[in-house]
Amino acid sequence: MPNFSEGRRPEVIEAIAGAIAAQGVKVLSVSADVDHNRCVVTFIGSPEAVVRAALRGAEAAIRLIDLNHHKGSHPRMGAVDVIPFVPVSGCTMEDCVALARQVGEALGNMGVPVFLYEEAATRPDRRNLADVRRGEFEGLRELIGVDPAKDPDFGPRKIHPTAGCTAVGARMPLIAFNVNLGTSDLSIARKIAKAVRGSSGGLVHCKAIAVPLADRNQVQVSMNMVNYKETPLHRAFELIRIEAERYGVPVVGSEIVGLVPVDALVGVARHYLRLEGFKTDQVLEKRLVD
Amino acid sequence: MPNFSEGRRPEVIEAIAGAIAAQGVKVLSVSADVDHNRCVVTFIGSPEAVVRAALRGAEAAIRLIDLNHHKGSHPRMGAVDVIPFVPVSGCTMEDCVALARQVGEALGNMGVPVFLYEEAATRPDRRNLADVRRGEFEGLRELIGVDPAKDPDFGPRKIHPTAGCTAVGARMPLIAFNVNLGTSDLSIARKIAKAVRGSSGGLVHCKAIAVPLADRNQVQVSMNMVNYKETPLHRAFELIRIEAERYGVPVVGSEIVGLVPVDALVGVARHYLRLEGFKTDQVLEKRLVD
Repeated sequence: MPNFSEGRRPEVIEAIAGAIAAQGVKVLSVSADVDHNRCVVTFIGSPEAVVRAALRGAEAAIRLIDLNHHKGSHPRMGAVDVIPFVPVSGCTMEDCVALARQVGEALGNMGVPVFLYEEAATRPDRRNLADVRRGEFEGLRELIGVDPAKDPDFGPRKIHPTAGCTAVGARMPLIAFNVNLGTSDLSIARKIAKAVRGSSGGLVHCKAIAVPLADRNQVQVSMNMVNYKETPLHRAFELIRIEAERYGVPVVGSEIVGLVPVDALVGVARHYLRLEGFKTDQVLEKRLVD
Repeated sequence: MPNFSEGRRPEVIEAIAGAIAAQGVKVLSVSADVDHNRCVVTFIGSPEAVVRAALRGAEAAIRLIDLNHHKGSHPRMGAVDVIPFVPVSGCTMEDCVALARQVGEALGNMGVPVFLYEEAATRPDRRNLADVRRGEFEGLRELIGVDPAKDPDFGPRKIHPTAGCTAVGARMPLIAFNVNLGTSDLSIARKIAKAVRGSSGGLVHCKAIAVPLADRNQVQVSMNMVNYKETPLHRAFELIRIEAERYGVPVVGSEIVGLVPVDALVGVARHYLRLEGFKTDQVLEKRLVD
């Protein structure tokens, strides 16, 4: 699911996505954002095809994007900014870590400093992508090769003059899960977001912010569930419901934005239906995949 | 998902399953039951492959099974007793009805009277498989060709001397869903089963019986959910929970036996998480199939 620092020039986005699609992977989506000036190509395939596609996409981005002329609202440090490998089916997290190392090494050989992050991290202070990327292209340019804490895992101890540097890692699929509250009072959503997110004492693998939904006259607790196995959707939902009750506010709805692994829905059914002994491979569609 | 009248001779079951597997379909399971003297081969594939596999499996069964020497606890009327086509992915109920007609016609040409049932039925009194099969092989032998109500949809107006006759149809995937109650009083489970099932005023597409779970000292409402789209799992679950409350009995668990379409789990998540606008194609694994 690589993120490239280009969200405005369609010909560049097409060149990158085309290089990826030509490697025998299945491209699930290409989403570009003009404000962020960034695009994400989500694709899936065999380990060999996925590695090839990541590297051919990276090659195109390195050739076509110059960070010296890049502006956007999203933090970034490289033409290929970040390459997360995500296990989906018939593949473990360990497999994804191995792919991250393989692609990281190859990218390093192409002259781009590479930092391994999250499950692929080689140091605890590199698990968090935001920490790795702190300073962005302009700041890291001064630090790599000077500050030993910024020695890359692969590649030269000198930033690439136009393509910057890249974070390569492995992580669980992330679920964008939003819960809508029957009030227009943003301060209530803020308090609930604070209660539910891990950074302020809530659920470990939950990130949450409060967002106004002006056209609906409601507010939203907008979450990234970064490990639905340890912090399942229903737990965040029920916690929000209970916190909202304390303010006399109802939960009026929720939404999942983008893709969700079937396992996360199985978890929801398992909880509410009190299912015993259910295995995800009882899902008919899983049989078609494996 | 054809059902064959053989559950005891492994060499016959293997010959049938082998004939099916050789046609380029994916065999998901072969389950045989000695008491029922019956086996079910569940397979999936393209329309062309599925038709071929159903017919090659039927050929083997017609050649190897003689209903005159068949005994078992499950009602049956043919060597190939029933062939239901079930839409799974990228396929509608209408597609399955068309496949049922195609296979029915070909089976008829092989000398076996064929009755179209459920969604493929040509008359209302043939929708229900139990009605079609009433009298079984021995009874239908006397009726076909005599009683115009027993004129087959395809094939001769005379039962096949050894292979009997066959029901071919199309139906929704059936979900075996059981809810366990925290009591050993079977009469409570009986009352709840009666309340929840369609045949006695409950949910239309729900069949339910009461079953004792002696080793757990509990009782169970054992259900077949025959149309989870119109009668979703959570509705049966909640209805049972509410009926059980009236007796002061808790729902202690539930189970899904065998396969379940991902859509049914999406329905559960949609209800309990109050999901808005969620589409099944947001399930990651669906993208891998289509």
